[in-house]
Order: sequence, then C-alpha cells, then structure tokens
Amino acid sequence: MSRTQPHYFGAGPALLPAEILQQAASDLLNYKDSGLGLGEISHRSALGVNVVDSAKATIKQLLAIPDTYEIFFLQGGGTGEFSAVVYNLLASFALKTGKKGKADYLVTGSWSQKAAEEATRLGVDVNLAVDARKGSANGKSYGTIPDPSTWTLGSAAETAYVYYCDNETVSGVEFPYIPEVPEGVELVTDMSSNILSRAFDITKFGLVFAGAQKNIGMAGVTVCIIKKQLLARPKEADLVALGIPLPPLVLDFPTIVKNNSLYNTLPIFNVHIIYLTTQRLIDNGGLKVQQAISEAKAKKLYDALDAAPKGVYNCIVEADSRSRMNVVFTIPGEGKEKAFLDGAKERGMTGLQGHRSVGGIRVSNYNAVSERSIDMLVDWINTFAAST
Amino acid sequence: MSRTQPHYFGAGPALLPAEILQQAASDLLNYKDSGLGLGEISHRSALGVNVVDSAKATIKQLLAIPDTYEIFFLQGGGTGEFSAVVYNLLASFALKTGKKGKADYLVTGSWSQKAAEEATRLGVDVNLAVDARKGSANGKSYGTIPDPSTWTLGSAAETAYVYYCDNETVSGVEFPYIPEVPEGVELVTDMSSNILSRAFDITKFGLVFAGAQKNIGMAGVTVCIIKKQLLARPKEADLVALGIPLPPLVLDFPTIVKNNSLYNTLPIFNVHIIYLTTQRLIDNGGLKVQQAISEAKAKKLYDALDAAPKGVYNCIVEADSRSRMNVVFTIPGEGKEKAFLDGAKERGMTGLQGHRSVGGIRVSNYNAVSERSIDMLVDWINTFAAST
Repeated sequence: MSRTQPHYFGAGPALLPAEILQQAASDLLNYKDSGLGLGEISHRSALGVNVVDSAKATIKQLLAIPDTYEIFFLQGGGTGEFSAVVYNLLASFALKTGKKGKADYLVTGSWSQKAAEEATRLGVDVNLAVDARKGSANGKSYGTIPDPSTWTLGSAAETAYVYYCDNETVSGVEFPYIPEVPEGVELVTDMSSNILSRAFDITKFGLVFAGAQKNIGMAGVTVCIIKKQLLARPKEADLVALGIPLPPLVLDFPTIVKNNSLYNTLPIFNVHIIYLTTQRLIDNGGLKVQQAISEAKAKKLYDALDAAPKGVYNCIVEADSRSRMNVVFTIPGEGKEKAFLDGAKERGMTGLQGHRSVGGIRVSNYNAVSERSIDMLVDWINTFAAST
Repeated sequence: MSRTQPHYFGAGPALLPAEILQQAASDLLNYKDSGLGLGEISHRSALGVNVVDSAKATIKQLLAIPDTYEIFFLQGGGTGEFSAVVYNLLASFALKTGKKGKADYLVTGSWSQKAAEEATRLGVDVNLAVDARKGSANGKSYGTIPDPSTWTLGSAAETAYVYYCDNETVSGVEFPYIPEVPEGVELVTDMSSNILSRAFDITKFGLVFAGAQKNIGMAGVTVCIIKKQLLARPKEADLVALGIPLPPLVLDFPTIVKNNSLYNTLPIFNVHIIYLTTQRLIDNGGLKVQQAISEAKAKKLYDALDAAPKGVYNCIVEADSRSRMNVVFTIPGEGKEKAFLDGAKERGMTGLQGHRSVGGIRVSNYNAVSERSIDMLVDWINTFAAST
C-alpha cells in the first residue's frame, strides 16, 4: 500500500500527512510487534496506557502546558463539548460561589452560535456578549469580530465563563488575539480547527478543547486542556439543588481526568494518530515553525485573492478577522464558482466547496496541506482571475 | 504489511479478523480510489454517507430488523448509553403518560450495576428488580440469573423501561432468554459483548445498544437499534417541568436519527469496520451459522473445564447462566493461575487474565476468535489439568 498525497482542501475531517497514515495502517495490523493491532489491544493494557500517555506528553511539550493544567481525551467531538462546558464550568463556579453562574458567549460564527444555543437549551442564563451578525447587511452573516470595547461582558461575581470559538470554519473568522476577560472569569475556547497551527498562552484559559479531525488526527477523539483547579466539585446534590444539570459520566471532566481518560473505552487507535501528528510537529521544529508555515500559506492565498482584478473574488471577512485556516470567498457571476471548482478539479484539487449553509469557496489550510498544494491553488486563482 | 492471526482471548477491545484489518488499513490510505483515506473524507460527502448507510443495511439484514426500528451510531460507548437510556426513555414515557417514569434494573453483573448507578445519579427512581449479588456467599459476587418468578418488576403505569445487560463480560453471565416484561414497558438491553453472536427477536425490545469493540469493530462507535415510536418527544420545557434531565445533544436520539447519525462528526473509519465485519458475517452465512460456531466453541471450553478432575478448575457461574462469550473460572491453589497463564503464553495464547476487579481466568470467545485458537486452548486446559 502506498499513496500519492492528494491536493485536498476539505474543512474536516481533513487531510493527514501520508507518512502518518502509512504508520497508522501498519499499527492497525501489528502494533509494536505485539502481534495485535492497535484497534484490538485493551485500553488498560501497558501498551494502551502508553498510547494515551505519549499523546499527552507530546501535546504538553508542543503547547508548553504547565503542570497546573490537565490534558485529557473525550469522545463526542466539539458538539459534545458544547454541553460538557456547561455542566463542568457551572459546577466549578458553584463550588467557588455557591451560585449558579451565568455565561458570556462571543458569537462570531455558526459554531459559537451552536454552543450558545446548547447552553441556553441546558438552562444556562446566556449573555451574547458579542453577536457578530448584528450590523451585517442581512443580520445573519458572520465575517467580523466586533471591537472589544463593544462587548457586554458580565461581572466576575455572576459569570462562570466566557466562551468563544477561536476559529470559525464555516465563515472563516479567526481571533487574532486572546480575548481579555474580567479577573476570576474563566475563558473557554473551541480550537477545533486551528489548534497546533500557532503557539498560544494556555494560562489565559480555563479550558481549551479541540475535535481532532482537522489539525490533530481523525474524528472520534476530542482533546481537552483544563486548569486543574476547575476540576474540584461540590456534592452533586448541591448542584441539583442549584438547578445545575449533571453531566452524563462520559462528559464529567473530573471522572475522566481521575482515570487518565480511561474511565471507559477510549478509541486508542484514534488517540495514537494524535500522538503521531504531534510528534511529527515536534520533530519538524515545533509550533513556531508550524505557525510561520501556516501564516505564509495563508498569506499567499489572501494575496492572490486581493491582487485579482476588483470584483473577481469577494472576501467577505474583514481583513483583521480573516482565518489562516479557512480562506472563504465567493466568485460573483452566474456559473463562476462552478467553473472555478471544475477547473480546480481538472488540475487535481478538491474539497474547495464552501459549507452547505453559506456556499461559495472555502480553502482549508490545515497543517497537512502542503505548500505545493497551496502554490498550485494560487496559480489557479491567478489563472482563473486572468481569464475571467 | 501482513500479519499472522494471534491466539488472543482479551475481553475487549478484542480481536478482529485479519482480512478486515488488511482491508481497513488499505482504506485508511486510499478509500475506493478516491485518493483520500477513510479518516480524511467528510462524513457528509457521498462516500461518507455511504459508509453509514452500508453499515446500517448490513446490520438490518443480519439482525432482520423491521422498518419499525431505526439503526443509528453514537460516540461514548456503553457508558455513554447508561446515561442516554435515562434521558431518552424517560422522555418517551413522559410523552405517553405525562409523568416521570421509574425504571427497573436487572442487575446480574458489574455493567448492569454501573448502568443502574448512573440512572440513580441522574435522578431516576430505580428499582433493582433483580440483584443477583443477594444470596451469594459474600453478598457481592455475581454468577447467577435469579428465576423470573423472584423479579420485582414495576407496573406499566409507572415504569418507563426494564434494563438488563444481555452478557456480563466481567463475571461471565449471559441471559439464555429474553426477559418477559409487562405489556407497555419498554425492554432495554446492553448487548455490547454478545451482539452478532446469535439471532434474536428485536421486536421484543424498545432499545438495544452495543459498543463496537468486542464483536463488531473498534472502539469509538456504539450501535443503537430503537423502536421508532420511542423517538417522539414532548417539548423540552415539559420534560424540565417534570424533573427529567435533558440529554446533551450528542446523546439525544431524535437529533441523531433525524440526521442519519451525522448531526456531528461521526468517526466514519470506525463505522466502516462495522460494515466490513457485518458484511463478512452475511457472506459467511448469517447469524444462524455464527451462532452455531459460537455455541460449539463455548461448549468445547466448558466441556474441557467440566471434564477436568474435580477441584482443578472452578466455574463460578451457574450452568444455565454461563456466558458463551466470556468463559470465567478460577484455578484454586497457590501459583496455579500464574502457571496456567504462563503456560498459555508459552504456547502463544494471551489475553486470558480475568478482569482486574475479580481476578481468575477469563476466556473471551468472540466471533473473531477462531476454532483453532479454541482447540489450542482446550488442549492446554486438558494438559494443565492432567499435570496438576
């Protein structure tokens, strides 16, 4: 078995490096000469625990995570986390204050919107401290991060956490900074689509989570990094008395952490791919190097789009909120987008359709997308613009 | 890449057929000549949806599931289901009766015990209609299924569901029949460790679920089969008013079913292994054939244990509750179990240690364990007995 690395720009599940897939395929049949494949060994065996510990260690090293934080793995993806954040952050806040906390959501795209909706559904008093749709032409479009001076953040006495999505894959909006929040309020972020593309200061956060299927590995595992002190809990009866919903055990962070992510059966094979991906980043020089590569690739794309004759490409996202990970644009004119996609396909480039909810073109520029793929696409962006 | 099929008897994650692993490894690199591996394609692409639909179709065919039932996939394993059962079955019952239902649990081993504990934790009025520990020497051991005449089942007016675990992997207790429950009460079972080892009448059940990592595939996906009429729901506000906890969206059955298991990112690669496993069973003649094989293999093991000189092997489980899937026994005498395990290992047989909570020996006899492996083990059981 071998493969030619494709020129694929899908938004996730996304491309993986060829050498990692080769290694994973081999490990699926016979892992470390154990005679068993990695999908067959017990998660609690020495080999299984080592997979978990290895992935934790490489994440810790790459992101320079101090001992005051825990790394753990969950199932259920980002959507599972939308709920898990509610249960767990409200429980921590209740221990600290004896109250049911409120929550601030910075809604800058469809994923933070979904997270806010789930919190509301689960009974949280949600404050949309930012609603980036307001002020857009139709009141529904995302494409900007409003200035922090306009945010209506709640007080530390009442607010358990501030939630935001660091990179919105659908609309292509990425935070260029870490939001400032009042002292004592925990900052929570969904980094599913841009984690491992740049270094960041974890100590600004109470919780960072990321579904694995974009920049880290395959679907089926979510990486969580939490400030250890947020794992303390009041009695569950006290939470119920405060009207705070209890998590199902599979989303109860203290239970998962106490058991080194092995309270129940974790998909070890999927975790192993996280290990391979993070070890490869370390071998390649770490996140500073990857960050430079990610930024250079994104710059090439935006430069080409901006350099095209006016009106050919329409980048909706404001310049200072443009995502390095998901470059989103439309091509005005009947049949133009189809012609662009068809031409790309003829040249061996796929996965460029925009999200079904917004249409247009979306170029996902995750870590596994090579500079060669980006160069080919930039060439096509230029050629298409010249011919149109 | 190739492999020699090991003689492995682990309880799960468990052995997979070599040809399925070969196919899966190849599909990880390039699936159906798409140029992309199966971990990289979008779950919502035509190829991705086809993986889900194919796995559903083979499960439907194998288990002869009528159109009045839905098949769907979740993340979170059996432990996730312990909670999901509560949220979803109570919601169905509330629609029917306007009340918060109670639940009967038949506790015959540690998994049904954990399920009952989780239901209690989530606020259900749990009735232990069976507690198989009662009557055992220490009040803690499992090893029997009490006669149905002794069960204290609740009434249909009050009881949302009766829950049991069809095969308890830790203690090796398996139901030889489907429990009878009062008309109108839904029967729910955890078949994680014996599904696809025998045919059964799905119409007796409201819900059957099974973590994939024993007889169906790899960890990371749970198969659920539900009676369609149980997917109807009252308004969520009505549930909250009744004190019924809301599920996180990832465990909300109607949301998952409405989206063909693709509400959020399903690990398609792991689902594909389910398809490969179920298609292979169909190709091999279906569940009647597999059932005969499973029973023949189990009989060989129990016959060998029973034929040994009295006192060499101690089968704790009563004869009519013995699991075909997990053959559990102890070997009385200082150092005897270690000698048995060491001798097995010398002969190339591993995964025979009992669960860490109970010790002893456990032979898992899942579908992927070959007759040759069983014959080798029977030979060692005989040899060890003769030499001791």
